[in-house]
Amino acid sequence: MDTLKNLIKKNDSKILLIVLDGIGDLPLKDGKTPLETAKTPNLDTLAKKSALGLHIPVDYGITPGSGPGHLGIFGYDPLKINIGRGVLEALGAGFELKETDVAIRGNFATVKYENGIPIVVDRRAGRIPTEENKRLIKNLSENISQIEDAQIILKSGMEHRFVAVFRFPHLVSSEVETINDTDPQAIGKPPLKPLGKGEMAEKVSRIAEIFSQKVAELLKNEPKANYVLLRGFSVKPNLETFEERFGLKAGCIATYPMYKGLASLVGMKIIDFEGMDIKDEIKTLKREWQNFDFIFLHIKKTDSSGEDGNFDMKTKIIEEFDSFLPEILALNPSVLCITGDHSTPCLLKAHSWHPVPVLIYSPYVLGNTSIRFTERECLKGELGIFYAYKLMPLLLAHAGRLKKYGA
Amino acid sequence: MDTLKNLIKKNDSKILLIVLDGIGDLPLKDGKTPLETAKTPNLDTLAKKSALGLHIPVDYGITPGSGPGHLGIFGYDPLKINIGRGVLEALGAGFELKETDVAIRGNFATVKYENGIPIVVDRRAGRIPTEENKRLIKNLSENISQIEDAQIILKSGMEHRFVAVFRFPHLVSSEVETINDTDPQAIGKPPLKPLGKGEMAEKVSRIAEIFSQKVAELLKNEPKANYVLLRGFSVKPNLETFEERFGLKAGCIATYPMYKGLASLVGMKIIDFEGMDIKDEIKTLKREWQNFDFIFLHIKKTDSSGEDGNFDMKTKIIEEFDSFLPEILALNPSVLCITGDHSTPCLLKAHSWHPVPVLIYSPYVLGNTSIRFTERECLKGELGIFYAYKLMPLLLAHAGRLKKYGA
Repeated sequence: MDTLKNLIKKNDSKILLIVLDGIGDLPLKDGKTPLETAKTPNLDTLAKKSALGLHIPVDYGITPGSGPGHLGIFGYDPLKINIGRGVLEALGAGFELKETDVAIRGNFATVKYENGIPIVVDRRAGRIPTEENKRLIKNLSENISQIEDAQIILKSGMEHRFVAVFRFPHLVSSEVETINDTDPQAIGKPPLKPLGKGEMAEKVSRIAEIFSQKVAELLKNEPKANYVLLRGFSVKPNLETFEERFGLKAGCIATYPMYKGLASLVGMKIIDFEGMDIKDEIKTLKREWQNFDFIFLHIKKTDSSGEDGNFDMKTKIIEEFDSFLPEILALNPSVLCITGDHSTPCLLKAHSWHPVPVLIYSPYVLGNTSIRFTERECLKGELGIFYAYKLMPLLLAHAGRLKKYGA
Repeated sequence: MDTLKNLIKKNDSKILLIVLDGIGDLPLKDGKTPLETAKTPNLDTLAKKSALGLHIPVDYGITPGSGPGHLGIFGYDPLKINIGRGVLEALGAGFELKETDVAIRGNFATVKYENGIPIVVDRRAGRIPTEENKRLIKNLSENISQIEDAQIILKSGMEHRFVAVFRFPHLVSSEVETINDTDPQAIGKPPLKPLGKGEMAEKVSRIAEIFSQKVAELLKNEPKANYVLLRGFSVKPNLETFEERFGLKAGCIATYPMYKGLASLVGMKIIDFEGMDIKDEIKTLKREWQNFDFIFLHIKKTDSSGEDGNFDMKTKIIEEFDSFLPEILALNPSVLCITGDHSTPCLLKAHSWHPVPVLIYSPYVLGNTSIRFTERECLKGELGIFYAYKLMPLLLAHAGRLKKYGA
């Protein structure tokens, strides 16, 4: 990576990275994928004069979560960087994590007591309704705000899930990631004691244990959610920022907390705006275009429709995106890249390992290899199949932002 | 590799890996390769609905032997694992190597004596007939069965070649691989003394020296084969098994000792059966299908016909294999992969570095990229060109045997 860093140069170019989350797919209707089915006259025209290919988000056969998927296209090798489960949950819940935070994923659980010892009888408290979760978190928040010097911040998730952040007045180290989950991963067993290696991990473990006991006391009369299990103790990873790594002042336009969170991890500025639709994002893009060297624009609904197995919806979202392409191109980006963070085939209703279509539009491409932006047409493209974390160097090169290597 | 290991999950899927040894080739007749020339209606149909690509067995430009070739498709980076020459010869000769064995490749040689010092005059003893080799090995075996605490086991190979195994009552370490060959690699020079670094290597060197002297004494009146040169002192590499690495109960169906030996190195169960033909292997496949998660079926004759430069024979073997494809598909494998361990172009009459066609058949592929399973059609496929050791993660993914990486 230092090689690349030494080659970075600055200029006035503007790079736009549009991520259609989960865009890659498999044939499901008439042997076609959603990208192949969608009517995309604008994308078709663009594809003919662009460099096309497919990226492998993490590695061959590896299905990425959203964290590794985005790290890759942001230019960070996802096999070398760990984003803890707690941190990812916190980002997804919209926490703005600080370097003094320990993030933890919590599950409400049901225990019974045998000789005073709690025994787990349901690790998910019967998947209590989210509304009940909110009532419990409100109660806990009012009664547990501080343990030792840690401020305790709680946020409800769906059903039995919540996020706990222990906010300290001092920095916390990744040492706390040695702390084990308290979830025994089986019923009929007592919850595990949190134990970690090192002074700070011991302190956080102690606080977690006190927290668990206070919760148990406060919830002892609840019929289902009378205990909490804690998982994925983690701290915000200390990543080089986009500015440090690529010399880019970068902004993020996204509707979901998770993606804003991931972008903020690499130091992108999160751009505020109203609305949840593509049109709102495009409007924001136009408004902010002059303020950044690099904008990451995230479109969520391609992924959610894939997760739902809703082929027609995914196709429709692609067509909707296509209709905004003229407005996007009118901004005249030096480099426009359209891709996804991973595939989400409707057939699988889940993320998958399949390579993801990539389009790079710039004056410095071969082009004319393919007639559309689809999985199969991208196979014919000049970029071939490459690891996602190689995308950023390609975008920098097409933007004239990389010096020659060696003489 | 630990990343992959942490993602392994088990299910009831069944993976079939068929290796057509040396399948890749170059155009020789009418500008076509054997795969392009062969009439393969069944493979053609399958290719259209499969994921295709080519694998690079070891690295760009590197021609693999059978050892590295198979390690790669078994999911082990062949650049990171050394299989000693002695071990490979022993596997090829059908030895079931133990962890207490030192395997050595031997060559019968001719020496003359000058002032009592042996001087090599023919490093291969005039390539004596294999029958003569057998007579000599019988003689040596009867007269040298033990040196110090090592049991001496000898087995004839072709012409001047044989395998020696020193079997100890204790474990041997890879330290013995520091022992130099005794072959001086030139005529007119005395054989070298075996010398190794470390206590155990010194012991094995001493035994090897005693062995050489005993042989010289026993063969002193032979006109040609009156000495032995020893090469490739090595021990069975300690590889993670298929079960440990991939969570797969794996079986091997192969006709030649070398491939059974390689499969046993990674802990596959070697399935016994009668016969040497493809039909015998397919019959065995059907019989054993329910007993394994993963079966490696090795077909040898594509390689031997390539080595012989016999284009028509190689074409015929491919057609013969094609005729069995309906029976194979009737087993309904979750994932079927057809590939080779390397290319053996008839033009070269030898292994080569050329990428090897790969076909993966599963419900989770794009397909429809190519019309046949040939070198050139595989270039159009969705798998691209990838390192052989990435094949196993792909097969696991297509079998639903890998969890998501990160959240």
